[in-house]
This record gives sequence, structure tokens and C-alpha cells, in this order.
Amino acid sequence: MIHLDPIGRVRSTLTRREHAPKQGHEGAPEAWLVFEPRVVPALANVKRGDDLLVLTWLHEADRDTLQVHPRDDPRAPLTGVFSTRSQDRPNPIGVHRVRVLEIVAPTELKVADLEAFDGTPVLDVKAVIDRIAER
Amino acid sequence: MIHLDPIGRVRSTLTRREHAPKQGHEGAPEAWLVFEPRVVPALANVKRGDDLLVLTWLHEADRDTLQVHPRDDPRAPLTGVFSTRSQDRPNPIGVHRVRVLEIVAPTELKVADLEAFDGTPVLDVKAVIDRIAER
Repeated sequence: MIHLDPIGRVRSTLTRREHAPKQGHEGAPEAWLVFEPRVVPALANVKRGDDLLVLTWLHEADRDTLQVHPRDDPRAPLTGVFSTRSQDRPNPIGVHRVRVLEIVAPTELKVADLEAFDGTPVLDVKAVIDRIAER
Repeated sequence: MIHLDPIGRVRSTLTRREHAPKQGHEGAPEAWLVFEPRVVPALANVKRGDDLLVLTWLHEADRDTLQVHPRDDPRAPLTGVFSTRSQDRPNPIGVHRVRVLEIVAPTELKVADLEAFDGTPVLDVKAVIDRIAER
């Protein structure tokens, strides 16, 4: 058993599952990453305009779901969740590529293209490496 | 506090940290993903040749490290880990893009480009979506 403590939370106008776009590029609003003060040194080199990979804990997901109709389309054939981006899966970790719009405070970044709900726990932030092996 | 149960493990000839390439495309050996029988239905649509995003738990990482010399190069300036791909970070979750080489068994996939150590816990598997917002 693995234990995680969130490093922060998402602040967003997205508050209800049915209003979330299926992927960030389909119209996510601006959002903010609000970090725990203890991790501020890990943010030292984040700059406005950076692209970052943000990992979140999809806390509204159903962890018992192993197959879904992709994109909640009942006409789509039932598919194993490991071949989808469904939030419902045994360990619902979201992977989001975002762009830093503004460093609002040492503990707060305004970002684009984050489709997570308000209050979603943030688990990790990484550099994006635009090589085929990283995508 | 968030609790995760691994869905499987990495089997690989990479067994010691100093032998691991810094990224998969720098020469990771072939490796295998060995899944728990309980998650087999979630693998139903995985096919040979698929590219998948694999999330792992980097169990050898130092969770107290907030800044590193990138790529373990002492000449590189100390950098906040959230601007790097260092395995050392508060929640050391690895993000790996791999290609399915062979479906060896219902619970076992042979994959290319996975730089994780033998025994690394696997947390999640997702479809790769090759759009800029997904990378």
C-alpha cells in the first residue's frame, strides 16, 4: 500500500463533473494551482510560459470501474479503461499538460488547459519533454 | 492522505539505479508489465503496437528532495524538482510512454522504452493522445 500527501490543490470554475470538457484543449477555463508552502523550493525554476505536466488525484472517480463506454458515449463499445483516458480506473491519477500563464504568488500558479475540478488534489508537477518517448 | 494499491509490477533487466538511462529513449531494455489478475478486464482492448502511458511508483526515490542538479550533473545549477524529471520528489510518480511489443499473457505485456527498475510498482495505464494538450 502506497501513501500520498497532495502537494496542493486545483482552484477552478469547473465544479461539476458534467461540465468538465473531456480534454483540456476542448475548452477548459483558466485555473490555478495552489501549492502547500512546504513544496515552494521545488517550484523555484517555474517561469511564466513554461509547459508543465501536472499529475492530479481524480477524487470524484469510481475506482471499481474497469471498463467504460469511451467519452461517456453509450453508443461507443465497452472498452477496458487502460485503453482510455476515463477518470474511472483503479488508481485515478490525472495527467494534464498545462501552460503557466502567471506566477501569482510563491504558492500559486495561474495555468491554461487544466480540465480538473475545483478542489482536485495535485500530486506532482514535472517538466514536459517534447520527444516522442515522452508523450 | 491518499492510498494506492499497485495494479502490477515492472519486470526488467534494469536492477540498479546507476544503470538506468535518464529517459526511455536513451536505451532502456525491453521490459514487461505484469498485472494483478483483478485488473485484467481493464486490459481488454490493449493490442500489440499500441502506445500507452504507464504511471509507476518510483519506490527508490527520495521523497524529501525538493531541488536537484538535473540529470545528476554536479555542474548543472540546483533546480526545483517540479521543473525537472528527477525521480526524487515528494510524490515520485513516473510517467512513461511505452509501446506494446507483445501480449505475453492476459496479465503480462512485453513493452519497449520503459526505463523503470525491476520490481517498480505500476499504478495506472492510459491511452496516449498525440495532441499538443496531451503531451
